[in-house]
Formats: sequence, C-alpha cells, structure tokens
Amino acid sequence: MDGDRAGRHFIGVDLGGTHLRVARVDGVGAILAGTRVRTDREGGPLAVAAQIEQLVASLRDDVTVAVGVGIPGAFDRATGTVLGIPALPGWAGMNLVARLQDSTGLPCILENDATAAAIGEWRAGAGQGCAHFVYITISTGIGAGVIVDGRVLLGARGLAGEIGHCRIADASDPCSCGQIGCWEAVASGTALGRRAARVAEADPTGLMARLAAGGQVTAAHVGQAARAGDARALELLAEEAVWLGYGLVNAQHLYAPERIVIGGGLSILLDLMADEIAAVVRDRTLPGFPEAPILRAALGDDAGTIGAALQAGLTY
Amino acid sequence: MDGDRAGRHFIGVDLGGTHLRVARVDGVGAILAGTRVRTDREGGPLAVAAQIEQLVASLRDDVTVAVGVGIPGAFDRATGTVLGIPALPGWAGMNLVARLQDSTGLPCILENDATAAAIGEWRAGAGQGCAHFVYITISTGIGAGVIVDGRVLLGARGLAGEIGHCRIADASDPCSCGQIGCWEAVASGTALGRRAARVAEADPTGLMARLAAGGQVTAAHVGQAARAGDARALELLAEEAVWLGYGLVNAQHLYAPERIVIGGGLSILLDLMADEIAAVVRDRTLPGFPEAPILRAALGDDAGTIGAALQAGLTY
Repeated sequence: MDGDRAGRHFIGVDLGGTHLRVARVDGVGAILAGTRVRTDREGGPLAVAAQIEQLVASLRDDVTVAVGVGIPGAFDRATGTVLGIPALPGWAGMNLVARLQDSTGLPCILENDATAAAIGEWRAGAGQGCAHFVYITISTGIGAGVIVDGRVLLGARGLAGEIGHCRIADASDPCSCGQIGCWEAVASGTALGRRAARVAEADPTGLMARLAAGGQVTAAHVGQAARAGDARALELLAEEAVWLGYGLVNAQHLYAPERIVIGGGLSILLDLMADEIAAVVRDRTLPGFPEAPILRAALGDDAGTIGAALQAGLTY
Repeated sequence: MDGDRAGRHFIGVDLGGTHLRVARVDGVGAILAGTRVRTDREGGPLAVAAQIEQLVASLRDDVTVAVGVGIPGAFDRATGTVLGIPALPGWAGMNLVARLQDSTGLPCILENDATAAAIGEWRAGAGQGCAHFVYITISTGIGAGVIVDGRVLLGARGLAGEIGHCRIADASDPCSCGQIGCWEAVASGTALGRRAARVAEADPTGLMARLAAGGQVTAAHVGQAARAGDARALELLAEEAVWLGYGLVNAQHLYAPERIVIGGGLSILLDLMADEIAAVVRDRTLPGFPEAPILRAALGDDAGTIGAALQAGLTY
C-alpha cells in the first residue's frame, strides 16, 4: 500500500506479567511468525530482557527494521526507561529501549500495552476505518487505548485513557489502585468474580459453586453457568452489563468514538450481555452522539504484539 | 510571531443564551475592540443572525480576514449547519456559516462554545505553553474543552469532552440531561445551589437564607456567606470541593493534562475550595501522573470570543 514501506517487517513484543508474546508482522498487521513463552518473573528484568532478545533474534528476518514493545506500566517516552510495571517487580529504571537497540541493532520503541492493543485493533482488527475509536480491555482490570481525530491519544507521559480508574460509583470493594468506586472496581472480571463468590457462598449447592469445586469462584464460572442457563449467573451478568454500560456511555461522552471494541477475558461473555449493555447505552447517551457499535475484539491475544509492531513501523 | 499572518485580525463571536459577545482579536488573542448585547431570543435565529452581522460590520477593520462563532450546541462541521442549541429554540437547520459568509464576505467557522473557551485560555490565557490542557467551565452546567498532544480534541461530530455528563455518583437530583449521577448533577453551580437551598430551608434564620431574602438560594449566596465565615456555607463548599475533586481526578486520568483551568461562575469560589480539592486530587490520582496545577481561568467571559477568533485565524 505504502510504496516505500513495502516488504518491511516489524517485531512486536507484548510483555505481560504471565506471558511474553513476540511476533514478526508485516506492514498491514499480518503475523508472519510468532511465539509465546512464560515470562521469567523470578529471573527479573535482566532475564526477561534476555528472553526478548532471544525471541527477537529467532523471529527477525532480512527485512525486519524495528521492534515495538508493549508494556503494562509506565515509561519515559523520550528516554525509553521503564518507570515501573505493577505486575513485574524490579523494572523501575531499566532502559529497555537502549538495551534492545544495543543487542539487536534495530531501532526500538515502547508503548503502553492497552494502547498497543488499541493500535492493533484499529489498524488490523475490529476498529479498521475509524477516525475515532476506543479499545477497552476488561479482564482482571480495565484498560483502554483511544484513537481520536485519526491519531493515538497520548497526553502527558502517554498516560491518557485511564478510564478504568475513573470514579463511577459511590461504593465498591477496594480497587487494585486502593480507591473506592473506580470503574475497574465495579465492572472488571475481578469485580464480577467477587460478586459471584458471594452468591456461591450463600448458595453452596448452586451451579457456580459446583463448577468452582471448592476453589475460587471466578468470572469464568459465571460465564459457564450462564451458558448452561443458571438463573443466578444470568442475574450476575445482567448486573455486570449495567456497570459495563455506564462506563461505555462515559467513554462515548469523553472521546466521541465511532466504534468501541472490547477485548480481554470478559469479552467472551459480551454476547450474553449485549442487550442489557445496549439498553443502558441507549438510555444514557446524550442526543447527537453517534451510535457507536460495541464489538468484540477481532485479534484476541495478538492485538498487543500486532499494535506494538505497527507502531514501531510507523515510527521507523 | 508568524510572519505571513502579522497584522491579520479576526472576529470572534460567543453566542450565548443570554448574551451575544463579539470582538475583534489580533493573531495572539488580544482584544482590539469588543461589545456585548442581549441575545434577541424572542426574535429567533434570523434576528440573532442579523445582530451578529451588524456587530461584525461595526467591529471589522481593513485587515479582518475571518469570523469564528462559538455556539452552545451541536452543529455539522462540514456544512456549517446548526443541529440544535438547547438554550435557544428554533436554530436546528440554520446554516449560520453560509449566511454569515454571504452577508460579510468573510470566511466563517463554527466551534463548540466550551471548546472555543478552551482554545482561548490555551493560546492566550491560563493554559499557554501546555501541550496537554483541560478547560472546564462550571456554572449552571459543566462543560469542557480538551487539548491533547498539542491539538484540540474533537472526536466524532466534534463532541468529545462531555465530561459533565459522565456518571460519577450513584445518586443525585436529576441532571439537566435527565439522568442521575452525572458529574454536572452533583458538582455544578446548580447542584451546589440546590444543596444550599435545603440547608437554608432547614435554617431560615441562617445567613444564606437572609442573603437570599426570600428568593431562591444560589451558589452565589453560598460564596457570600462563606466569605463572611458562615460555618454552614463553608461546609457546603467543602462538600462541593470533594465532588469537584472527584471529577478533576477523572479528567486527569482521561486526558493526562499538564494543567487544568476552571472557568464559569463557580470559578470565583475556587480559592475557598482549593485545599479540599487538592486533598482529593492528591489522594485519588494514580502514581506516575503529572501533578497538574488547577488554576482559575485568566480571560473570564472573553475566553469564548478570543478562542473562536483564534480558531478562525488558524483555519483561514
């Protein structure tokens, strides 16, 4: 498509607290080769950097020209230094860009992991063709990446888009950030799992309790039970849908997207909540706003690597 | 500063439900001449357009090259047609751009009024020098204009930034939009006035009731009483500060500004609430976000005309 970029490949890295995903991607976001390993948490940042270096070396080809790394934390965009990764201790102060550039000889960029996933869905997934687009990942927590006016929304230090930690309710269990009332605290998979655990505790012979088999009841059990027609699980999902709907209306008012795409573990339950979410969105969205379709992410767990690679490709 | 633009002037129009402000502005946002009249509401859109035309004619000079109009409503950016102005009936379908261009012979643009005020404060007021900047006007309602990554945030139909109608609380009096729990419904001047009216009703000999002298107790009376040291008024402002603080933290997380500027009627009480607002912001803002100073607007009621004029100047 873009003549002088034809035939260029990019490596995308998705550095997660559990898994490290690396892929070689072409200029339109197709994965040409990819792999996933467990992140060497215990080894610390040097061991993980060595994992990345080894996977880049094994995946790069003759026309690989840059590396993009999505990280679940804060970093200094100017220097490439990681400021901190909540899920991975010991990373503060690590200059990952300098290290990867030294070892690979390729230019390297960092990107926030939710932003990287948003870029992936925007340019190669369910957000294609939109000038205004919000990607929201709902799993343990809630993160977002935002495209407005045809550009990635960054803000100071690249931190814009933290809609998961906006106050949306008066009461909640404590959020991962320590506050009360964040959207994440009432609408994440963690929040749904907590509500389900209370229901299961009060009803130890119910389906959700039986599915958990003595272990922790989670959002996944709610989904399983709901698909089997369990009334209590369906009620929990209806409640979850209202909390999701409130936050999605906020996202509309804040960023005026043409489309909202939902990724993360909870997105596989979107079909069970679609009607209730749509009802809240219809009820609360201000007149004049576009009716933004709410879709499930198309790239699954690959959105982050694809987006990080494409962002590296745009930069170099 | 900008060589080929030196000596060019622009007319800015702030079309309000009560007042119509028009000013001739230079390339850096200084008002060279300006006037304010009552908006001819009863006359309808044709009469108001004639008011605008007459004021533009009286204020333009030989180097006036464009007109910008800030309107408190929705419009079609491509065609210049007004879609509706809640405070002024009868405007839907009026092509204000075509009409003003025909009658003045000058190119004309429309801009949302809060966005225009944000542009004014950004380029000529308290937001100067910021790449990431949020302007929030707090009066009867709550509106916002957002600058991120050095550009005005628009979104689909230019509607991004409606932070006043984001859900922030479980309960409230009905919002102007008809919903419950919007930031505007708990933190606007209207919301403060309603809480004050309840306090005054329960305490008819108190200072706020006496200041209202049998009329409606408003946010202005709260301010007067608080400056006189009235304990109940100070309590109301402390509560108001918490609601403002919650929304300002949301604004930080959503747009990651370097600075937040507050305009509108309630901004004159900012000094009385600064400590409580700062405490909420300190407590709830995520680590890593810049400490964005929260300042009172510098341009007062002129922000909208200046911003509309400067935006016209940037466009033409």
